[in-house]
Amino acid sequence: MEQTKRIMLTVAYEGTAYSGFALQKVSPKPTIEGCLNQAIYALTGKTTEVIGASRTDAGVHAYGNVVVFDTGSPIPADRFGQALNPLLPEDIRIIDAKPVADTFHPRHVKSRKTYEYRILLSPVPIPTLTRYTWRIPGDLDVNLMQEAADTLVGTHDFTSFCNVQTQSPDRIRNIEKILTKKEILADIPCRGEKAALVKIRVTGNGFLYHMVRIIAGTLVKVGSGKIPVEEMHRILEAKDRRAAGITAPPQGLFLLRYDFDGKYISSCDWFRDNV
Amino acid sequence: MEQTKRIMLTVAYEGTAYSGFALQKVSPKPTIEGCLNQAIYALTGKTTEVIGASRTDAGVHAYGNVVVFDTGSPIPADRFGQALNPLLPEDIRIIDAKPVADTFHPRHVKSRKTYEYRILLSPVPIPTLTRYTWRIPGDLDVNLMQEAADTLVGTHDFTSFCNVQTQSPDRIRNIEKILTKKEILADIPCRGEKAALVKIRVTGNGFLYHMVRIIAGTLVKVGSGKIPVEEMHRILEAKDRRAAGITAPPQGLFLLRYDFDGKYISSCDWFRDNV
Repeated sequence: MEQTKRIMLTVAYEGTAYSGFALQKVSPKPTIEGCLNQAIYALTGKTTEVIGASRTDAGVHAYGNVVVFDTGSPIPADRFGQALNPLLPEDIRIIDAKPVADTFHPRHVKSRKTYEYRILLSPVPIPTLTRYTWRIPGDLDVNLMQEAADTLVGTHDFTSFCNVQTQSPDRIRNIEKILTKKEILADIPCRGEKAALVKIRVTGNGFLYHMVRIIAGTLVKVGSGKIPVEEMHRILEAKDRRAAGITAPPQGLFLLRYDFDGKYISSCDWFRDNV
Repeated sequence: MEQTKRIMLTVAYEGTAYSGFALQKVSPKPTIEGCLNQAIYALTGKTTEVIGASRTDAGVHAYGNVVVFDTGSPIPADRFGQALNPLLPEDIRIIDAKPVADTFHPRHVKSRKTYEYRILLSPVPIPTLTRYTWRIPGDLDVNLMQEAADTLVGTHDFTSFCNVQTQSPDRIRNIEKILTKKEILADIPCRGEKAALVKIRVTGNGFLYHMVRIIAGTLVKVGSGKIPVEEMHRILEAKDRRAAGITAPPQGLFLLRYDFDGKYISSCDWFRDNV
C-alpha cells in the first residue's frame, strides 16, 4: 500500500474574489478550499480534501492561513508550494509547505491566531484601498478604542460579540491582546487633512463566528463617541448580540498569523518538529 | 445659447481592470477616459470628451489624476463628484470637482507631477500586494539607489529613459526630486526576514513614455549591484534606450499628485483662483 504523508501548507490570499475559505455546496464565487483541492488533484491525480485551520469569511484576506492534507505523492513536502502555485489563481499563493505528524489537525491542537482589522479614515474613497479597508469619513479616537479593547482582553463569554447563528454552544474564549493604532497616510492628502489607517490587531486562542468583525464594529462606535468606554463591561455581561456594535464589513479583515502549541507559525516561520 | 462652464475633476483609480487612461479605438479592457465620458453622458445627456492631464498606462494607479470637461449642465461644479460616482465603476472615484477658467487645459499649463513606484522585497508573493507592487525576491541597497537617482535630478535629455516609440521629439525634461526609501512590513514575517516595500518617488515637470518605469527598472539594477552608480552618467549620455534597465511592470506605479502653475493641486487640496 502507498505510503502517505501529511503536509502543511501556509496559504496567503486576497479574498475579494472568493466566497470565503470553506467549501460550500453552492456558492456565488469559488472558495479558497475548493481551489486548493482542485490544484492538489491536478498535481497528484488524487481527490483530496484539505483541512483548514481558519474558515475565513467571504472577502476576508489572509497572510498565513494553514491547511493540511495527506498525499502519497513522491513530491518532497517542501516542494509543494512551487508545484501547486502554477495551478492556483494568482490571488491564492502557497507561501510555505512542510511535513507534519500524521495526526496533526490544525483545529484540534492548541493554537493562537492574530487577526488585524483595517479602517480607512478618509473623506474620499481611495480606490487602491477599497478592497482592504472599511472606510469611515470621520475621525476615530484610538485612545478610547484601546481603552475599550482592554476590557475585552482575558477570558470572557463573548456571546455579545458573535453572530446569532454561531454553531458553537461554548462562547467562552480568551483574548490575549488587542492593539489599536493609527497610521497617517502621508502620501494621500485629503481636503487639507491626511487620510489615516486605523489598525485593530487581535490575538486570541480562538474566535467565534464574526467575532473580530463585531469587536471592530463596536470599537468604531467607541472611537466615534457613540458608545462610552464604561459601557463595554455591560455589553459583555449582556450576553446579547444586540448589545454590541455592527459587524464591520469583511474586506477590512486580515488573518495575519498562526501559532500552534505556543510556537510561532506564520507565513514563513516554521517549526519542523513534531506537532 | 446654453452657457457652458469648464469643470476640473480629480480622479483616483485602481488601474488593474483598465487598458490605461486614454481612450482607444480597440482595447482589451475599458479605459478610464471612456468610463468618465460615459458617466458624464449618463448624467448630462450630452456627449462629452474629457481632457486628461496624464495618460497613465494600463495597470497604473492614480491617487489624483486630473481631467477637465465643458458642460452646460445646471449641476453646480462642486457637486459633480457626488453625481458622477454612482455612475462610475467602484475602482474609479471622483474625489474632487471644481470650476476652472474656460481656457484651462491641464496639459498646456506649467505643471508638476509626482509619481511613486513601489517594489515589494519578499521571498514569497503577498497576494494583497500583487496588484500594487513589483515583487523582487532579493534585497536592494536603497542608499545606492538614491545615489544613482540623484544623478538623474535636474534638466537632462532622457532619451535613454523613454520607450523607443515615444512620440515627442523633445526628450529634455526636468526632474526636481527623487526620493528612495525602504519601509519594513512588520506585519508580514517571511522566512525569518521581514518583507519590505521600496518606494521611489519622482517629481518632475513632465515625463516621457514609460520614463518613471524605466527609471525604476534602472534603479533596481543599481540597488541589486548589477549596475555601478558611476554608470548612471554614461547611461544618460548614451541617449540610447538600450543603455538603461528594463521597464518596470505597470502595477507598481502610482500617480500621486499634480501641481499647476506652482500651486499644489492634489487629490483634495485645491485652489479656486483662475488658473
